[in-house]
Amino acid sequence: MVPIGVADGRQRAVIDAVLPSVDSGRFAAKCVAGEPFAVQANCFAEGHDVLRVMLQWRRDDDERMHEVPMALKWNDEWHASFTPPTPGRYHYTVCAWVDALASWHHELVRRVDAQDIRIAARVGAAEIAAAASRASAANAADARQLRDWAQSLERGAADSALDSAELKARALDPALTQIAQRYPDRQHASTLAPGFPLVADRERARFSTWYELFPRSAGQQPGRHGTFADVQAQLPRIQRMGFDVLYFPPIHPIGREQRKGRNNALSTEEGDVGSPWAIGAAEGGHKDILPELGTHEQFRALVQAARAHGMEIALDIAFQCAPDHPYVKEHPAWFKWRPDGTVQYAENPPKKYQDIYPFNFETEDWPAMWAELKSVLDHWIAQGVAVFRVDNPHTKAFPFWEWAITEVKRRHPEVIFLAEAFTRPKVMHRLAKLGFTQSYTYFTWRNSKKELTEYFTELSTSPGLDYFRPNVWPNTPDILHESLQNGSPAQFKARLVLAATLSASYGIYGPAYELLEHLPRNPGSEEYLDSEKYQLRHWQLDAPHSLEGFIAHVNAIRHAHPALQRNDTLEFLAVDNAQMLAFLKRSADGRDVIVTVVNLDPWNTQIGWLELPPELIDVGSEEPFQMHDLLGGQRFRWQGARHYIQLNPWEAPAHVMQLRRHVRTERDFDYFQ
Amino acid sequence: MVPIGVADGRQRAVIDAVLPSVDSGRFAAKCVAGEPFAVQANCFAEGHDVLRVMLQWRRDDDERMHEVPMALKWNDEWHASFTPPTPGRYHYTVCAWVDALASWHHELVRRVDAQDIRIAARVGAAEIAAAASRASAANAADARQLRDWAQSLERGAADSALDSAELKARALDPALTQIAQRYPDRQHASTLAPGFPLVADRERARFSTWYELFPRSAGQQPGRHGTFADVQAQLPRIQRMGFDVLYFPPIHPIGREQRKGRNNALSTEEGDVGSPWAIGAAEGGHKDILPELGTHEQFRALVQAARAHGMEIALDIAFQCAPDHPYVKEHPAWFKWRPDGTVQYAENPPKKYQDIYPFNFETEDWPAMWAELKSVLDHWIAQGVAVFRVDNPHTKAFPFWEWAITEVKRRHPEVIFLAEAFTRPKVMHRLAKLGFTQSYTYFTWRNSKKELTEYFTELSTSPGLDYFRPNVWPNTPDILHESLQNGSPAQFKARLVLAATLSASYGIYGPAYELLEHLPRNPGSEEYLDSEKYQLRHWQLDAPHSLEGFIAHVNAIRHAHPALQRNDTLEFLAVDNAQMLAFLKRSADGRDVIVTVVNLDPWNTQIGWLELPPELIDVGSEEPFQMHDLLGGQRFRWQGARHYIQLNPWEAPAHVMQLRRHVRTERDFDYFQ
Repeated sequence: MVPIGVADGRQRAVIDAVLPSVDSGRFAAKCVAGEPFAVQANCFAEGHDVLRVMLQWRRDDDERMHEVPMALKWNDEWHASFTPPTPGRYHYTVCAWVDALASWHHELVRRVDAQDIRIAARVGAAEIAAAASRASAANAADARQLRDWAQSLERGAADSALDSAELKARALDPALTQIAQRYPDRQHASTLAPGFPLVADRERARFSTWYELFPRSAGQQPGRHGTFADVQAQLPRIQRMGFDVLYFPPIHPIGREQRKGRNNALSTEEGDVGSPWAIGAAEGGHKDILPELGTHEQFRALVQAARAHGMEIALDIAFQCAPDHPYVKEHPAWFKWRPDGTVQYAENPPKKYQDIYPFNFETEDWPAMWAELKSVLDHWIAQGVAVFRVDNPHTKAFPFWEWAITEVKRRHPEVIFLAEAFTRPKVMHRLAKLGFTQSYTYFTWRNSKKELTEYFTELSTSPGLDYFRPNVWPNTPDILHESLQNGSPAQFKARLVLAATLSASYGIYGPAYELLEHLPRNPGSEEYLDSEKYQLRHWQLDAPHSLEGFIAHVNAIRHAHPALQRNDTLEFLAVDNAQMLAFLKRSADGRDVIVTVVNLDPWNTQIGWLELPPELIDVGSEEPFQMHDLLGGQRFRWQGARHYIQLNPWEAPAHVMQLRRHVRTERDFDYFQ
Repeated sequence: MVPIGVADGRQRAVIDAVLPSVDSGRFAAKCVAGEPFAVQANCFAEGHDVLRVMLQWRRDDDERMHEVPMALKWNDEWHASFTPPTPGRYHYTVCAWVDALASWHHELVRRVDAQDIRIAARVGAAEIAAAASRASAANAADARQLRDWAQSLERGAADSALDSAELKARALDPALTQIAQRYPDRQHASTLAPGFPLVADRERARFSTWYELFPRSAGQQPGRHGTFADVQAQLPRIQRMGFDVLYFPPIHPIGREQRKGRNNALSTEEGDVGSPWAIGAAEGGHKDILPELGTHEQFRALVQAARAHGMEIALDIAFQCAPDHPYVKEHPAWFKWRPDGTVQYAENPPKKYQDIYPFNFETEDWPAMWAELKSVLDHWIAQGVAVFRVDNPHTKAFPFWEWAITEVKRRHPEVIFLAEAFTRPKVMHRLAKLGFTQSYTYFTWRNSKKELTEYFTELSTSPGLDYFRPNVWPNTPDILHESLQNGSPAQFKARLVLAATLSASYGIYGPAYELLEHLPRNPGSEEYLDSEKYQLRHWQLDAPHSLEGFIAHVNAIRHAHPALQRNDTLEFLAVDNAQMLAFLKRSADGRDVIVTVVNLDPWNTQIGWLELPPELIDVGSEEPFQMHDLLGGQRFRWQGARHYIQLNPWEAPAHVMQLRRHVRTERDFDYFQ
């Protein structure tokens, strides 16, 4: 008798287009614990009845579903938000129903005919009596009040001496209406199943400042292999620069078979240390430490010391093996053997990794291999690591990452995974969707005003915004971009300011960056000459040309300004000069507003007129306001929409300006010459 | 042992972002049987292995799954199409796998080292031998060839006398490769489940031309109630005008209780016929015919006669009841009774329908009510009707429509449902998603160049394009738009040309439209004076000012030109005059190109320069081409990008120009003065 495929035809409320929605709930959206997560949905029913709509949410490991009423904004769009209290995996969905009592109330408001009002009062009396029954189990006092109200309407409707306007007022009683609303009839409510997953991370997932170094180059004398203790000695310096994640390339034993020599040579010389990404040797594999660096105990001590300096250690997870990695002998089934008894080495064309065997993700023994790889993560988490930079995740099977990240975060929701995938756009997005907390980007290769504008517009808008958190790097051990190869300090500064202000998370590979290291292995190459990937380096950290102070200044501004700690408020501003890039960011509460202008030309002073529509920053067109350049210290008094900007790269390639709206007296201003 | 929630970790191929996808497959996309339906998906796997991707599809009632290989276009986007042979409900999905043989082939191509080639030959021999085993059950000859090939590679690899280039050529043998590709190893293929529903309609769903008339006004003498026979007499006239759907307001017995008088009066006078939307009286309800119009037999005769004239009859489905509809007594549970024993009449604010009871979609007896309402559709389908215009579907429960349309189309996939919902945008989209074949639009109220450009851009692009098929009307019995109230023939012509060329489906309410009926019931009203909704009218069909000839001409152009029979190719063109709207449409094969330019000012000649970039129409910038105005008959010889247009509304408010690229001689041209 009941129509096929229809549970209850009386579920009249429609819920459509819930946002955020990553592939209709196939993947989790991302947010930060302790911060409101905003949800919207299109909800309506046939006709003109009044809807009530609830945003429902719960932590995955929690039985209890929480509810937040959603409010109609316009055009059938309902909005609400909730704040996941702690990091973890959540679900949210939307529930809606046609509310008979609210519909009756809404309709009564516009009734004027006395007879209509009398009928309506009787209709309402029945609805209110039903609400009273629903209330009775929960709150006897409410139930009594509602019953009395229902009876008074019933009596009033029958009493021809009672003025209909008075009866109407009685029926619209605001206090009683409020009570009745607590006991809605939800038996025909629609709920969108199965809902939408959400990952709430800790704040560092949204806002982080990374510094990468090779511990083996931290040796305090030239030629001496660095140790964890040497790194520990550098912590105050790195903390002063304002970094909060200190990231190391792999720290494991390095293979001896097929070991690479300096500058990627295929043969080694005496004393060559090999690439840290060629993981595994007689001393052990992914759960072991290169003896020259130190012991597990020393590593844990470093993790503690870093924490004391406001930093945490990030490890590099490179799931691949040197030919002499213990896995190769213990688990030959995890590799793809050719008829000649060899394994084809790893490649990421045009790069060749002759010293590395890839895992075979088509092995029949995949369950054991997955379990073992995940146990590597667990091992380092047990040592106090909660941030992983994952090397080339796009060369390992995607289903593995989805499972491993979800499983790790189920027990350790604080863990952050950064995907080091410099690959095709859809692949990078998939990795972010399936669970990577942050993602490397194309920033390194986006240099012109047009490129930067287009790319960061994409990164700061939905759908990507809902799951893809960019972490931008002006350089990495693999990438010395052509634009840095001139060694211009202005270029290094400009790229750093762009990274630090366009993106809430960024990082540099140092000390190469602050020391303006800029020689390529050969012309046209993006590889560093004498790269630390294949040899020890000794860095003169106190060199006079070091950008250490500049970087500290920029990072201090980032830490002080919530506007720079998020990506979703980014707006590009017009400047009539193709060498000048300008953009505005604001904090969630709108109180912190930062306008950055960067001169992209490292050699010449550039001037331009910046368009800053006063309404965009909530000032009147006649109202003066102050722009305080936090980088240069100047304070500009501006008014109106167009403003003159001049940037000499030899002095400062950028303004990072804070808007100050409330200026008390003229004397507060320093005028810029 | 197997990781939780993972069926097989070796399913390495990723399938992402399948398009079209209406809410990730919650609703069906729409297409036309016999026409290719294009699908794309982002597919990739980790690393650099070669993927094979298949588009899979089947008719819902068919066991067999068909497969079409998808081709990589760029940026991990794979494309293919299939042609649903018959109207019906289909499913499609995408299947992808990492192809070991193709990956081996791809890699071998770039190998140059002799030793590498020898190893690769042995790897390939094993893969080919496996393909031979897979082939053996299906095709013994193929299996033998593959086995021989594998052995020849194995032998060649071992034969140090064989040149490695020759061995490589043998391994890349194109004919044998093609055979091997027929037997891929698909054991770890990924298939996106549950896939995506698709409704294939007949062609009229995409391209239709509607004419609405009140049969009761078809009487051949003033004051005489029209009959189906009278309508039959008009068929040649309507066919000449080029319409293919003839649509009637409800043809059922009209209620006597609360019957409305002329011009929506609340009381009737002797002889008042009432509103056909107040359905049901002693004579019967939704399955019966108003006796004055004729019998079921006469109706079926009319359906047949219309078919003989290339037309089909569309009925109005208005699920609501006059107070004396038999349902009201037989099924009181289907209505919402107030304590005073009355039912609140229907409203669609500000409109009040005092002569109509709405159904109560919250009735406990909903299964019986749904079944009865659907049986109304079945009843008329049995009389030969296959097109329904559904009155105010947004005032009936959405789940009902989704069920009823799906059920009806399961047995009668040829049926077309037009949603007459003039309501809020998300509601209109929901109705289209849940199954309505075509949808009324806001065209009637979109008059300026900006409004028309924005609205039709939205209608001709995804996601709406995938499920929302507009049917645009310059007038309806309910809507005499203000812009038509001046009665200007140029305005009536311009709005008709816009409807007929902007949208593949359009309709008019006649004979009011072609006879320039333009007086409102009162100033500021969109209601017609002396509306047929409440009274008989007698139309002077041969009036000299009738637009009959003009309409016939426009519709003949539509029928001759596939470019005008679809919406997805619409492109607006720039004209430097805000009163002139220009746009281009082309057929699926690109051979038919139509440029329409409309003067939106019904009083004054407008001139302007039209921008028609030569590359847009695939002609060289130096190459002359002809634009043949199919409406006015002139032929313009154009060249380059900017073209002068002059339109005098008193002559013709529009050009509808066909591009003719291949001009033989100068003599073919008539120059426009």
